[in-house]
Amino acid sequence: MFDKVLIANRGEIALRIQRACRELGIATVAVHSTADADAMHVRLADESVCIGPPPARDSYLNIPALVTACEITGADAVHPGYGFLSENARFAEILEEHKITFIGPTSEHIRIMGDKIEAKETAKRLGIPVVPGSNGAVTSETEAMKVAKDMGFPVLIKAAAGGGGRGMKVATSAADLGTALATARSEAKAAFNDDAVYIEKYLQKPRHIEIQVFGDGKGNAVHLGERDCSLQRRHQKVLEESPSPALNAAQRQKIGNTVADAMRKLKYRGAGTVEFLFEDGEFYFIEMNTRLQVEHPVTEMVTGADLVLEQIRVAAGLPLSFTQDDIELKGHAIECRICAENPRDFRPSPGQITYWHPPGGLGVRVDSGVYQGYRIPPYYDSLIGKLIIYGKTRNDCLMRLRRALSEFVIDGIETTIPLFQDLVRDPDIADGVYDIHWLEKHLGMK
Amino acid sequence: MFDKVLIANRGEIALRIQRACRELGIATVAVHSTADADAMHVRLADESVCIGPPPARDSYLNIPALVTACEITGADAVHPGYGFLSENARFAEILEEHKITFIGPTSEHIRIMGDKIEAKETAKRLGIPVVPGSNGAVTSETEAMKVAKDMGFPVLIKAAAGGGGRGMKVATSAADLGTALATARSEAKAAFNDDAVYIEKYLQKPRHIEIQVFGDGKGNAVHLGERDCSLQRRHQKVLEESPSPALNAAQRQKIGNTVADAMRKLKYRGAGTVEFLFEDGEFYFIEMNTRLQVEHPVTEMVTGADLVLEQIRVAAGLPLSFTQDDIELKGHAIECRICAENPRDFRPSPGQITYWHPPGGLGVRVDSGVYQGYRIPPYYDSLIGKLIIYGKTRNDCLMRLRRALSEFVIDGIETTIPLFQDLVRDPDIADGVYDIHWLEKHLGMK
Repeated sequence: MFDKVLIANRGEIALRIQRACRELGIATVAVHSTADADAMHVRLADESVCIGPPPARDSYLNIPALVTACEITGADAVHPGYGFLSENARFAEILEEHKITFIGPTSEHIRIMGDKIEAKETAKRLGIPVVPGSNGAVTSETEAMKVAKDMGFPVLIKAAAGGGGRGMKVATSAADLGTALATARSEAKAAFNDDAVYIEKYLQKPRHIEIQVFGDGKGNAVHLGERDCSLQRRHQKVLEESPSPALNAAQRQKIGNTVADAMRKLKYRGAGTVEFLFEDGEFYFIEMNTRLQVEHPVTEMVTGADLVLEQIRVAAGLPLSFTQDDIELKGHAIECRICAENPRDFRPSPGQITYWHPPGGLGVRVDSGVYQGYRIPPYYDSLIGKLIIYGKTRNDCLMRLRRALSEFVIDGIETTIPLFQDLVRDPDIADGVYDIHWLEKHLGMK
Repeated sequence: MFDKVLIANRGEIALRIQRACRELGIATVAVHSTADADAMHVRLADESVCIGPPPARDSYLNIPALVTACEITGADAVHPGYGFLSENARFAEILEEHKITFIGPTSEHIRIMGDKIEAKETAKRLGIPVVPGSNGAVTSETEAMKVAKDMGFPVLIKAAAGGGGRGMKVATSAADLGTALATARSEAKAAFNDDAVYIEKYLQKPRHIEIQVFGDGKGNAVHLGERDCSLQRRHQKVLEESPSPALNAAQRQKIGNTVADAMRKLKYRGAGTVEFLFEDGEFYFIEMNTRLQVEHPVTEMVTGADLVLEQIRVAAGLPLSFTQDDIELKGHAIECRICAENPRDFRPSPGQITYWHPPGGLGVRVDSGVYQGYRIPPYYDSLIGKLIIYGKTRNDCLMRLRRALSEFVIDGIETTIPLFQDLVRDPDIADGVYDIHWLEKHLGMK
């Protein structure tokens, strides 16, 4: 086991990792920017090193500063958390060159999954279902029609060189296809000087469902069920739950096994998340995150696994502490991301927390990196804490969430607590009937 | 189900019950003394009623004031918590006379178990093991010798009319018996004007182990494993854990089944705890508490049951939500009673809490009734919160407890946190090797 782990992150996740290390008897090194000298992850660490000023590129993304911090403190491993350098293959490589263990997958796997096209091809090769589409660009309306009819309307026409929604058109029926194709082509030509377009199945009301996986890097891998993260605003997850109210046991087992098999073939190491869109009973691969996710606690609550402890164990060369048969989803968990934001327009609300009283009692977990008197700096993500609720059933969980939110007091800044107080009273949320567009519609954004 | 529950208590347990009610969609009424107007259980309740000034006999023990509070607010049930009126049979009867449900057992069962002699006789009749001894007073040294030899030395000679340790002598061997008997008799005569003495087996290094039971009042009953509460100071429990490090599975199952059988015969209703001394593999009944215990959360953590919810369900006439087969002890839980006391001499430390930062994260539960800025009144029990830790194994639990204690910040008053920080580092605690005298010896009291 490691003697000392440097945590290359800040906020609640830095504290989450620090706690796991402490529970394993491992010393911790906190790093921080000049703006974060008073942060809780610094106050509670065994040692801390200032690695530069904000913004992040000068500190939390500064690889030489981090490597130096490891060498000064004698840290023998680095946990990158999420965001920042957690999916930076070069960082993983540099650490290995310095004989410092990167707590995460191999740099090769980070690189593959970081490239959208290669990730999709790899997923397909490993037997993971991907969004059906033309193989490469379509060259004529006749070919487009054949592809579209084969997979069924509606279809999405996308610029091969595209991005940001430009050169993207939906054709809802065969009658639409010609016009949509022509428009997409001309937009693509104008935007990218390349009129090549390809066709994909268009998902109208998908859910975002992701599978948590864990591998030992030697060909053993398990899945730990799914998380439903469909409640999003501008592609940012807002509330996550496990299990998904949309999946039945057979669907859960099938996709879980497919993903775990793929990870075995890949000899994947550590924690990973394979993200899907889910519609009409079918899963479509979006991407794989080769790191711990913000929403990992909901999986911990329903499986009983400690995912950060497991990451550290696997990185130290220990075997997985569970087999697939040990993993059983029990009960229900929901996570609310409490952000320092205005709950209506979502503008950041940095400043001093003048009162902080988290809820407690049975089934309530709070993962946070702040404290009363702490001044939230304006430079970073607005996430200040996660309220994670466990209940025997989804309804018990929602009732408990409602009462926990009613106890949560944060003064001095605005937070997203009122949004969640609204959501827990919504009939669609109570029924679990929502897709990835639901929240934006609910907020009047669409 | 009830519409409105009045909670006839204060502090953390009032909040615990309020949370359970809220999660069931039941409105709550808080009652409070004039000294508790700002207490958290009052602030968070749907309604609150002032029932008189301190001390407790003029408010929390004031039955007419409580009945009036029920009638004013239209509460259809009362949860008494622990302490105060929770084991007052007359209170239960008066409520029933007013058609208000008492959330607890029948007044008859409260009365039986409230009388030490009747409780012991009832336990014996129901097949629960009790401390062996002479049947009534011994009249001669010959008879005393026969009784003592039958059960084996050491034995305890106790004044029949006794109490407070007077007229109580230990005879460690047959050679001691004559002198011990004569001394006990003369002390008994002097203290109580009655030289009758009886003999009981003397337990030298027992542990305090208690079995949590639940009955539906109709002859169904289950046990939910044990709690080890041997760490005591002046008969006050300080730290409790489940399961006990001293029991093996066969012992656990045997005593659990014995107690559950007894509760079935008794047609016991609601939550109860049967307390034992445990030595050399044998259990000896002490008493039965016909109410929720302070330490109930450790049982909740290892069984997954919500004991307060269950009390409310059973009181409403619903069946038990679990059978004996559903109850499985999983993992390990420890509770530390955080008191507003000096951690060395245990003098109460009332006053204002100027900073309150509870620990969080995986496996950490805090049940508390205080908040920053709250002024602890000097009239009541010094318990301000319970830190309850769950871990997969006892060692994981201790490591997590250690890190949670290191995060807990309470300023403005003295607390018992330093005592627990000391205990989690003690090799005897780590090994689970302690009896009911251990803590007082450790504290230099013996």
